[in-house]
Amino acid sequence: MTQTFDPASLTYDANGLIPAIAQDHATGEVLMLAWMNAESIARTLATGQVTYWSRSRQGFWAKGETSGHVQRLVEMRIDCDRDCLLMLVDQVGPACHTNRRSCFYTALREGAEVEILKPMV
Amino acid sequence: MTQTFDPASLTYDANGLIPAIAQDHATGEVLMLAWMNAESIARTLATGQVTYWSRSRQGFWAKGETSGHVQRLVEMRIDCDRDCLLMLVDQVGPACHTNRRSCFYTALREGAEVEILKPMV
Repeated sequence: MTQTFDPASLTYDANGLIPAIAQDHATGEVLMLAWMNAESIARTLATGQVTYWSRSRQGFWAKGETSGHVQRLVEMRIDCDRDCLLMLVDQVGPACHTNRRSCFYTALREGAEVEILKPMV
Repeated sequence: MTQTFDPASLTYDANGLIPAIAQDHATGEVLMLAWMNAESIARTLATGQVTYWSRSRQGFWAKGETSGHVQRLVEMRIDCDRDCLLMLVDQVGPACHTNRRSCFYTALREGAEVEILKPMV
């Protein structure tokens, strides 16, 4: 298979990063947003396992490498400005470090924050 | 209605911005990602019309103000780190400036970029 796509063709911020949204490929649920650099995109495409760049640890973050909650890449999509990625994934278990399926478990309802997802058991 | 939520309780980047994902509340389709500051979040909540901060124009961007392709806010969600927002929206027409429903119309398939959405008529 000839890879014609070049991660260098994307637009990165001043830190060399691009935001990546992870979406459950089957349910459409938005699971999380994290950041990638060109090399983490290349690793994601080469391995089929979503690999982010951890801004706090300043290192590669192969999602699930310690927890087992890996994200298998189903399809990568690029937005019109080429400065954001959408990763359709097959998520094992919770995507969130709080053990919830999605990081977006807080909703604003009638002006107040409401927890709409419980941790998975 | 008492608004207990304070946009200042969120975590913004060095430019005072937070990424906001817009998702079609009915279909689950991810439409776009743009940026907000605290005041654009307040405006969004007060008006029910999603208002971003345009980094290129350095000004408020009430989505659809010129095109008519407005986003009515259905529900705002906050992620675990409080540094990303998910806006469930009712999108009128295309979300993308290219007249496509979603900005994520380019997919990577077998190593090559493929256009998967056509402009709306």
